[in-house]
Amino acid sequence: MSDRIQRVLSKMEERGLDQMLVTDPKAVWYLTGVSVEPYERLFAFLIRRDGRHCLFLNRLYNVSQQTFGEVWFSDTDDSIGLIAERIDADAPLGIDKDWRAGFLIPLMERCPGMRPVLASDCVDDCRAIKDEAEIRLMKEASRINDLVNGMAADYVRPGMTEKEVAAFIDAEFLRQGASGSSFTTIVSFGANAADPHHEPDGTVLRDGACVLIDMGCVYQRYCSDMTRTFVCGHSNPEFEKIHALVREANERAEALVRPGVRLCDVDAAARNHIAKAGYGEYFNHRLGHFIGQTDHEKGDVSSANSAVARPGMIFSIEPGIYLPGRFGVRVEDLVLVTEDGCEVLNREDKHCRVIGK
Amino acid sequence: MSDRIQRVLSKMEERGLDQMLVTDPKAVWYLTGVSVEPYERLFAFLIRRDGRHCLFLNRLYNVSQQTFGEVWFSDTDDSIGLIAERIDADAPLGIDKDWRAGFLIPLMERCPGMRPVLASDCVDDCRAIKDEAEIRLMKEASRINDLVNGMAADYVRPGMTEKEVAAFIDAEFLRQGASGSSFTTIVSFGANAADPHHEPDGTVLRDGACVLIDMGCVYQRYCSDMTRTFVCGHSNPEFEKIHALVREANERAEALVRPGVRLCDVDAAARNHIAKAGYGEYFNHRLGHFIGQTDHEKGDVSSANSAVARPGMIFSIEPGIYLPGRFGVRVEDLVLVTEDGCEVLNREDKHCRVIGK
Repeated sequence: MSDRIQRVLSKMEERGLDQMLVTDPKAVWYLTGVSVEPYERLFAFLIRRDGRHCLFLNRLYNVSQQTFGEVWFSDTDDSIGLIAERIDADAPLGIDKDWRAGFLIPLMERCPGMRPVLASDCVDDCRAIKDEAEIRLMKEASRINDLVNGMAADYVRPGMTEKEVAAFIDAEFLRQGASGSSFTTIVSFGANAADPHHEPDGTVLRDGACVLIDMGCVYQRYCSDMTRTFVCGHSNPEFEKIHALVREANERAEALVRPGVRLCDVDAAARNHIAKAGYGEYFNHRLGHFIGQTDHEKGDVSSANSAVARPGMIFSIEPGIYLPGRFGVRVEDLVLVTEDGCEVLNREDKHCRVIGK
Repeated sequence: MSDRIQRVLSKMEERGLDQMLVTDPKAVWYLTGVSVEPYERLFAFLIRRDGRHCLFLNRLYNVSQQTFGEVWFSDTDDSIGLIAERIDADAPLGIDKDWRAGFLIPLMERCPGMRPVLASDCVDDCRAIKDEAEIRLMKEASRINDLVNGMAADYVRPGMTEKEVAAFIDAEFLRQGASGSSFTTIVSFGANAADPHHEPDGTVLRDGACVLIDMGCVYQRYCSDMTRTFVCGHSNPEFEKIHALVREANERAEALVRPGVRLCDVDAAARNHIAKAGYGEYFNHRLGHFIGQTDHEKGDVSSANSAVARPGMIFSIEPGIYLPGRFGVRVEDLVLVTEDGCEVLNREDKHCRVIGK
C-alpha cells in the first residue's frame, strides 16, 4: 500500500500538487486497504507530500484500522470543516473526479483561496497498470465469465424472457464463486439489441431473433466483462454477414494491441473495418474501456485517446453494429497488454452461433 | 412535468438563481420524463428562468423524445464546451449536489467568472413532498417489502448462511413484482448485526443468534426500506430487553410524527428513550432518512435537522442498538406524513420474535 501511495505522490509531484483528496472508495481501498461503502456520506483520504496523510471516517463505518491519521466524525458533525482544517487553504488541492459537488462546493466556500485541480489521473494512472495480484484476480473473473456465458448459451430457449436469462446468469455467477455481477447483466433479444444499453425486460425470445448477452462478474473486488451475440433457432445471411463484420473488427483490433500502440489506432482498426463495409454510422460508441475494480475505469479505447498501451493495462475491445428496429451485434473481450503483445482474457468462441434449438 | 419544473423555478427564484444544472438522473427523469442511466458519461438538464431549457444527451442514450432543447453529443465531443456555450458565464449557476468534480472543475475552468452554487435543494425539496401517484407506488413497494420480510422470517433455519437468506429475499422481490432490491439486502447474524452496514457473507446461523434483516425493493422506480430483528431458535432476557427498548424508541418516534413537528424532535424522542436506559452510545447513527426514487434521498431525521414534517413526506424511523462483538437490534419502518399525523407504511409485526424453529 505504501508503495502505491509513493507512486501517486510521484504523479502529484509532476503535476505540482502537494496535497490531494482521494474520495473514490475503490481508490481509497487501493491506497489504504480500508474498505468502506460510504453511500451519500463523506469518505476521503487526504494525501500530503509531507506525509501527514489523513483518512476521514464516519464513526458508522466500523473501521478498526489505525494505520493512518484517522479523523473521525459523526453524521451531525461539520465534516467539511474537519477537512478544511487539515489542508493548506492557499495551495492547489487535487480533487478526485468522482467527488460530489455537495462536498466540493462547501469546501471551496470554506477555503476561498484554494484552487481545486482535477487530479484523479494521479491515482487512476497507477490503477490502470495492474500488478500481478490484480491480473490473477481479473483472469479468474474472466474465467468465470466465459464459463457462465457458455452455460447461458446452452440454457436459452425460445419462449424465455430476457429477465429469465439474466437471472440465470446472475445466479450462476454466485454459484461459480463470484460475489455478483459487475454491472446490470444485459440480455437483449431481436430489435432490443439495437440499443447498446437495453436492460432486460419481459421480451420473449422468438425463433430467428438475435440474442445479445453482455455480462460480467466480480471476483474478489475485480471485474470481468464480455459480450457474445447469438441467434435463436435458425440464422439468416444478413445476420451472419453483420456478425462476421463485427467479429473481424474485434479480431483486427486485438491483433494490434501491444506496448506502444496508440489506443486511438486500435479503435481505428475496428472502426475502419466496419466503415469500409458501409456500417460506420451504426457503430456509435467507443471501441473499449478500461476495467478493474469497476467495470468502467478511467481510460478508453477511442478516437480521442492517443495514449499508448503499456504492459499491465486491461481493457475491453467491443465493436458493435446496431440497426435500429431490427437487431444488433456486439462482440467483446477483455485484453491484457503483455510485454510483447496481448493476452485475450476471454476464451469463449466468438463466431456466429445458433442457440436455443 | 412542466408543473414540477415551475415548482423548481420558484425555489430557484427564492435563491436568486436564474439557471441551474440538474444532473441527478432521477431528478432529470422527475422533471422531463427522460430516463437515462449515464454511468460515467455526462447527462444534464439546464433549467433557465427564461425558459430556454436544454437537455444534454449522449447519442448513445437512445432517447427519442424531443420536448426540450436537446443538445446531442458523442463520447469524443467537447461536451463541457457545449454546456459552457449555453449558460450565462457571469451569473451564479445552480449545481446538483451529486454532480461530479470531473465535470464541475472543467466547467469552472472554462467559465472563470461563473460562481457555482449548491442548489440541489431546489429540486430535492420538491421531490421530498410526494404526490399522489408517488405515494401509491411507495405503498405498493412497502406492501411487497412486508410480504417478503414475512416470507424470509419463515424461511430462515439454523445452518443457513447470510448470503442464502439475502438471495432468497432478492429472488422473492422479483417474483412479487418488484424490479429489484433498492439497496444491498442486509442479513446479519449474531455479532455481525453490531455493524449497521454489514454485508451478507458466508456466516452460518447458529441457535440463539440474532437475525437482523434490513431490506427494500423497487416498484416502478420507487423504493421501500424496512428492518426487523429476530432471534433464532430460542431467545434470552438480554436480547429481549434490548429489542423492546429499540421497538419502543421506534414507536415513540412514530407517535410524534405529524405536520409541524421538527424532525430533530422526532430523532430526540427515540434517542432519549435509548439513552435513558444507558445505551445512548450504542445508537450511533441518525434516526432516519428520506426515501423515494432512491433508498437515501435528501433529508434526514437527525439531531441536526430542525426542518418540520410536512404532508407528503416519506422517511424511515430506524433506531438501533449495536453491542460490538455481541449483537445488534434495529427496527425500521417507513412513515408517510398525513394531514393530521402519519401512516406507517410497514405492517409486519415488530415485537421480538423467535424464528427458525
